[in-house]
Amino acid sequence: MLWGGRFEEEPDKNLLEFSSSLNDDIRLIKEEIQCGKVYAEMLCEIGIITSTELITITDALYRIEAEYDSNEWKPDPREFEDIHSAIESRLYELTGSEAGKLRAGRSRNDQVVTSLRMWCKKSAGQIKGLLNNLQLSFIQTAEKHIETIIPGYTHMQQAQPVSLAHHILAYVEMFERDKVRLSLVIKESDNLPLGSGAISGSTLPLDSNFLKERLDFKSLCNNSMDAVSDRDFVIDFLNCCSIGMMHLSRLCEELIIWSTAEWKFIKIGDSFTTGSSLMPQKKNPDVAELIRGKSARVFSNYQSVITLMKGLPLSYNRDMQEDKPPLFNSYSIYSESLKLMEGMFDTIEFDNTYLLSIMKKSTILATDAADWLVLKGIPFREAHDIIGKLVVYCIKNEKGLQDLTIKELKKINPIFDESVIEIFNLENSLNRKKTPGSPNPIFVREQIAKWKSALS
Amino acid sequence: MLWGGRFEEEPDKNLLEFSSSLNDDIRLIKEEIQCGKVYAEMLCEIGIITSTELITITDALYRIEAEYDSNEWKPDPREFEDIHSAIESRLYELTGSEAGKLRAGRSRNDQVVTSLRMWCKKSAGQIKGLLNNLQLSFIQTAEKHIETIIPGYTHMQQAQPVSLAHHILAYVEMFERDKVRLSLVIKESDNLPLGSGAISGSTLPLDSNFLKERLDFKSLCNNSMDAVSDRDFVIDFLNCCSIGMMHLSRLCEELIIWSTAEWKFIKIGDSFTTGSSLMPQKKNPDVAELIRGKSARVFSNYQSVITLMKGLPLSYNRDMQEDKPPLFNSYSIYSESLKLMEGMFDTIEFDNTYLLSIMKKSTILATDAADWLVLKGIPFREAHDIIGKLVVYCIKNEKGLQDLTIKELKKINPIFDESVIEIFNLENSLNRKKTPGSPNPIFVREQIAKWKSALS
Amino acid sequence: MLWGGRFEEEPDKNLLEFSSSLNDDIRLIKEEIQCGKVYAEMLCEIGIITSTELITITDALYRIEAEYDSNEWKPDPREFEDIHSAIESRLYELTGSEAGKLRAGRSRNDQVVTSLRMWCKKSAGQIKGLLNNLQLSFIQTAEKHIETIIPGYTHMQQAQPVSLAHHILAYVEMFERDKVRLSLVIKESDNLPLGSGAISGSTLPLDSNFLKERLDFKSLCNNSMDAVSDRDFVIDFLNCCSIGMMHLSRLCEELIIWSTAEWKFIKIGDSFTTGSSLMPQKKNPDVAELIRGKSARVFSNYQSVITLMKGLPLSYNRDMQEDKPPLFNSYSIYSESLKLMEGMFDTIEFDNTYLLSIMKKSTILATDAADWLVLKGIPFREAHDIIGKLVVYCIKNEKGLQDLTIKELKKINPIFDESVIEIFNLENSLNRKKTPGSPNPIFVREQIAKWKSALS
Amino acid sequence: MLWGGRFEEEPDKNLLEFSSSLNDDIRLIKEEIQCGKVYAEMLCEIGIITSTELITITDALYRIEAEYDSNEWKPDPREFEDIHSAIESRLYELTGSEAGKLRAGRSRNDQVVTSLRMWCKKSAGQIKGLLNNLQLSFIQTAEKHIETIIPGYTHMQQAQPVSLAHHILAYVEMFERDKVRLSLVIKESDNLPLGSGAISGSTLPLDSNFLKERLDFKSLCNNSMDAVSDRDFVIDFLNCCSIGMMHLSRLCEELIIWSTAEWKFIKIGDSFTTGSSLMPQKKNPDVAELIRGKSARVFSNYQSVITLMKGLPLSYNRDMQEDKPPLFNSYSIYSESLKLMEGMFDTIEFDNTYLLSIMKKSTILATDAADWLVLKGIPFREAHDIIGKLVVYCIKNEKGLQDLTIKELKKINPIFDESVIEIFNLENSLNRKKTPGSPNPIFVREQIAKWKSALS
Repeated sequence: MLWGGRFEEEPDKNLLEFSSSLNDDIRLIKEEIQCGKVYAEMLCEIGIITSTELITITDALYRIEAEYDSNEWKPDPREFEDIHSAIESRLYELTGSEAGKLRAGRSRNDQVVTSLRMWCKKSAGQIKGLLNNLQLSFIQTAEKHIETIIPGYTHMQQAQPVSLAHHILAYVEMFERDKVRLSLVIKESDNLPLGSGAISGSTLPLDSNFLKERLDFKSLCNNSMDAVSDRDFVIDFLNCCSIGMMHLSRLCEELIIWSTAEWKFIKIGDSFTTGSSLMPQKKNPDVAELIRGKSARVFSNYQSVITLMKGLPLSYNRDMQEDKPPLFNSYSIYSESLKLMEGMFDTIEFDNTYLLSIMKKSTILATDAADWLVLKGIPFREAHDIIGKLVVYCIKNEKGLQDLTIKELKKINPIFDESVIEIFNLENSLNRKKTPGSPNPIFVREQIAKWKSALS
Repeated sequence: MLWGGRFEEEPDKNLLEFSSSLNDDIRLIKEEIQCGKVYAEMLCEIGIITSTELITITDALYRIEAEYDSNEWKPDPREFEDIHSAIESRLYELTGSEAGKLRAGRSRNDQVVTSLRMWCKKSAGQIKGLLNNLQLSFIQTAEKHIETIIPGYTHMQQAQPVSLAHHILAYVEMFERDKVRLSLVIKESDNLPLGSGAISGSTLPLDSNFLKERLDFKSLCNNSMDAVSDRDFVIDFLNCCSIGMMHLSRLCEELIIWSTAEWKFIKIGDSFTTGSSLMPQKKNPDVAELIRGKSARVFSNYQSVITLMKGLPLSYNRDMQEDKPPLFNSYSIYSESLKLMEGMFDTIEFDNTYLLSIMKKSTILATDAADWLVLKGIPFREAHDIIGKLVVYCIKNEKGLQDLTIKELKKINPIFDESVIEIFNLENSLNRKKTPGSPNPIFVREQIAKWKSALS
Repeated sequence: MLWGGRFEEEPDKNLLEFSSSLNDDIRLIKEEIQCGKVYAEMLCEIGIITSTELITITDALYRIEAEYDSNEWKPDPREFEDIHSAIESRLYELTGSEAGKLRAGRSRNDQVVTSLRMWCKKSAGQIKGLLNNLQLSFIQTAEKHIETIIPGYTHMQQAQPVSLAHHILAYVEMFERDKVRLSLVIKESDNLPLGSGAISGSTLPLDSNFLKERLDFKSLCNNSMDAVSDRDFVIDFLNCCSIGMMHLSRLCEELIIWSTAEWKFIKIGDSFTTGSSLMPQKKNPDVAELIRGKSARVFSNYQSVITLMKGLPLSYNRDMQEDKPPLFNSYSIYSESLKLMEGMFDTIEFDNTYLLSIMKKSTILATDAADWLVLKGIPFREAHDIIGKLVVYCIKNEKGLQDLTIKELKKINPIFDESVIEIFNLENSLNRKKTPGSPNPIFVREQIAKWKSALS
Repeated sequence: MLWGGRFEEEPDKNLLEFSSSLNDDIRLIKEEIQCGKVYAEMLCEIGIITSTELITITDALYRIEAEYDSNEWKPDPREFEDIHSAIESRLYELTGSEAGKLRAGRSRNDQVVTSLRMWCKKSAGQIKGLLNNLQLSFIQTAEKHIETIIPGYTHMQQAQPVSLAHHILAYVEMFERDKVRLSLVIKESDNLPLGSGAISGSTLPLDSNFLKERLDFKSLCNNSMDAVSDRDFVIDFLNCCSIGMMHLSRLCEELIIWSTAEWKFIKIGDSFTTGSSLMPQKKNPDVAELIRGKSARVFSNYQSVITLMKGLPLSYNRDMQEDKPPLFNSYSIYSESLKLMEGMFDTIEFDNTYLLSIMKKSTILATDAADWLVLKGIPFREAHDIIGKLVVYCIKNEKGLQDLTIKELKKINPIFDESVIEIFNLENSLNRKKTPGSPNPIFVREQIAKWKSALS
């Protein structure tokens, strides 16, 4: 215990188990030990400890790290309040009174938030890396499918033809935004709170700039009360995880639908699907379902921390300890999901022949037909109506637009002429798109080229 | 693996770790084994297995339970998808092909929800017990403080005097509602889904009523698709946890405020407070802060499961596996919080002398004075205004209402006479309350008597 | 303004607009006026007002109600803090000082929660009625489709055949649970808080039992502090709305999927679909999408109120005013969704011929085949494996199970004999189900009969 | 209606009321009309409409705007699906077929998201302005209180002295982060989706760059499917609102506590407090309570939209219409809260004399004493313990640290000497702080100077 002088009774047994954060903040052990080493150096520099003491402390910290890595040392949450207490206790066993010197000027309030900021910088960077990998993998697949025409959907109804590449690139856009958002978190986490003490800094001549340089922070926190109370960077990280998982949940929904017997767009590899304990024929897209399902938990993790912080007076309150389980949980789910998505996506087979066949009897090119009328000078409002009638004719006669003869067309509306036939040609339809950002292969190729140069 | 016949590739390594629910559903091991035993009996009864096979299976299930209890057998999430797979695998090691017979007619879809319903019934009952204990403990304290007058607050401003007993009894009311709400969950969980298979029951002549009786369920689920898709009872349980924790969070807020240097109502025992690693004088109400903080997570657990279920088509989807981490987490936090609250509350000392002193200079009896005017025939609207002026006088002259002389009163408004002086007597104020449910000691004693007879 | 005596400055203009709840609690006007009438009677009964005053007040309250109903009187949120202030102000204009008498012993704290409880009882009852209607409508459709076989899905993959009736009855089960849950809210709301005043009852001899009888409450709130602080019934109502909307969101997801060009199970009537402003061929299931989408808001309304209440000390705090917008919003969305679902469901056409055709080439009866092996004495584990191989054969040869000849079957595994052919007969498959709750038409007919007698 | 050609039945009456978004998206009318004008210009430029038609359309759009501003034209949600339909309908009334031409190449899918992005840019900018004002106002107050010493709190227990200025500056830091976060939203919203059509761009030769320049967007959306499906900028905006309101909720909690009879730090002006309808003496900090309470709703608005988007397949789905009510609600609450906070904060009086008096009998300088021991070479661990004993002595003898005589000190521990007395001097304590970011007046002055130059 790091306190106790003024207490006359021992803490209740249940209290420690209930209140210990060790199971969670053990995840910060590397950061915590690195901070310890740098802090010791600084204390030596300003004369609070001697060089001999510095060596003793540093050696002991190296040893604790090694013990932890080799599973020799496993602190028990029923014994320690948190990672700080656990490390100090071991340090004390290894060094004696030197351990006590390391605490001068530090409080767990500034310690934990320093380690947490270091962890956030590192972890946000890792996720950016995973997103980059996923983008590269998607680009590779997209490149093969620039000419693969599939129905584009709105309201889950076939809307207009797009290419598979174009569809995949929509996700590459999302992942790019996810990376930009994470960069803000990294920047936001890059201020050092160490030196803020419990709430109001220290009367010891601590060298904050030394700490900043050695712990690789960009700048110092400007206000000690804010420094120990601020968890904005945690919430922003959780926002990144939520939006990122929302993107994955949308993709997973599509993969689940696409792999149904009814949709049949794709086959997911055996190694990323599972079977049923009862039904021998089942092959289920469990990974996609789990990612979609786990996104709910990631969303709620955001809610958990923002709710936690609501109405807390300055500065540190113990409630804030509960910022870590949601943060670590969201990080784990998000990073694992990204890895699995990459693995799974690589096993997907697209059934191109089938894809080509679906739109055969459809009216999916109705909009192009309306545009054709517009270019003939018909106001769009009327064009929409004219083509609407054509659609009704197709449905009643179970025909696709491309099945209509020029005779039928003219009978419905004399405005139609031979040139409209070309409009109903599905295979050429993407090439007629004029707007940047559309699935016209010209634009898609440009996009892919741009991504390849940006991501590599 | 409980499937695989139709698969040609092994599952990806990462997939199993990502998708395994074993770390969570290990919590259902007792229920799972009990179901296994009863199911085997039923299979024997309907002739699917022999009595010898029944004995082999039952013995093995007992052994697995014992091995688990003694830590001899610890299934690994990197090896098993879930508790069902883990148990079957061990059963297979112990018995051979008999294990395979136990699966007839069962699917993990109906298995998991059967165990989960059993767990919910048990756990909701346990929490009801903890609430009962807390109520008894609160009643005991309340009984000692029927005449202890404290300020009642609205908007955190002193509003009208109440008794400490009355304040405490408000929480006893909340806990009672919490118990009623949990009873609904117990009732809702009391339908047996076993026999529903994966989605549409079985062509085997399973005896559902036998299972129902032996597993102590009240009735059978009426619809096999609903049976495997329904998680309402989980969400209702999470609602119970949320409202229950919300009540505790309010109490904790009060305990935190009451134990400040500024409020000084109470002292929490050393064994339920903690100190600071930096500031030697600190004694912090951490338990109360943690309960308040953890309530945020419990709220978000509700959100997590309701969001999970949004828009899932019938029947079972793998997403639904993610119902368990939030459920178990909320249960743990809630039940631990109740236990700690009971322990902590018992250590609280109320500073009666101080409590008496705070309202001395106040205008807290202004409403009683307005009522006094009403009984004299003044419309309340005017009475409110007249007393409002009295309050302004008190503030300007730094006096409490009870400090006013009859001369001063008459000068402010001639309507006042000697009899109003009695109204400003704080100590007698509660006795003047006429409405049931008020802090009048007569009513409070009745309430306490009622609770004592109801709870014991 | 219902206060002001002790204030020396007027409220800031922006404050009133920001803080007024009138736009929301205007919804409680009927309840508020009814309370006013009954309260006046009681005051007369206990001698605080005369019979003449009672008549004046009652007449004025009737008039205010009439003025409101005819849009003659429209209180402005920039002028009044809440419905209570607005009504009192108008009452004062109409009667003069009598209005002021009506306030004796009442506080807005107990007034608002009384009206809110009345509103909840009424509104929960209305939703139960809508659910009942929807159940009846679903039962009617189900009755026509007891023999309509459709694929039952797990993980969105075809799992086992079920009947359309069975699928629809799963929702009838959900709606029934929704009604039970609402009944708890009605019961929970049925305690009268009026008489609790602001926090601690009254020194006036108010007759609470008179109020209880006349306002049709079952009992009195036991504790005045709890009475004005308790919003459990609101949260429980919001939980009902959330779970209810979650059920609808699942159904909507199915309707959306079923009406795609790929699934083709249903056609939703033109009157419940919408078109596209750009694409002339589009017909979108907007109602289903909107219900699904609005469920998200209903979930968040729950979160809003539980978060609102977190850590609020007793008793009333102004934050609690914010319980109403989420409550009213959830009620509106839920009740409108139920009405629209009923309307839309009635327009749905099921394509029976198509439904029959989909399972033709499938292996959807694999489980029945495994059960057939079990009844021959094969452990299920092995049976699962044997049928798994059969499935692989079917996939490789693009055959359905029912396409296999006895020669092929025997070649794969000699255990098969002629009798298995019957198992692969889709049309008879439901009749072979033995477990209650399964889609066997016998059980489904029983269920429908039970519902018809229970609901009418 | 903007569609209908292929429909044979009219929409159901209830459907329109349920599905219309007009009540919400009317808020986008300015953006919508501006887009219309620029779009018409572009259509003219590329030859789809003539200059005469352009003038007709532009004039009509100006007129619609004027009609709306003067309340002459008020579209009814029971008549129109959305703002787009309403405007087109009025345009059609005013111009005839020209109106129909304006729709060429546009879909409501790209229209609404264009207007929404324009609104977000504008509104995020407005909030940044309000935050700036609040910062300036806080800086002004801070400047007056650089030497006003107050207790700094952790766990709501007095921890170490800080200055009021320092405390206020903590919020200025938060507001600064809020502005940075909003800047990201502005940047994220700054890509033009117009030209993406419903999902896949247009075959008309639309000039996207012309639109971009004239509508003042930084760049074009890269992918038409993503363009109509993306609501990240909405969620990011809602994250900004949530974190911003969380900050305000913390401040409000402090103001509420500080204005209690027990804490007495501040008086809030009459114009920003309200009274009680029952209790004549009450003066309640309602504005602070309402901001705290409304923060719950703002948090849930975030949840609402992220949940809405979960699992939606590409591209546009009608669910997405429900992004607007939460967005507009959060914006309104947040911006109003900022305005009211500024108004309220300016009325606050700090009771300096009282503030000085509270820490007199305290042990709040215990940490400084421990630091003093550290500088004498005592390991902090021991120093903490020594001072802990001193604290126990103070409590037992009801003394503050500054009340201890050198004799008493030496008796407790001989290590103390005269020089420690200076340490117990409260008034000088801030000046002894050595770390940047601490409340040392030197650093606080620097901060204020920095802010003044940055904000003006």
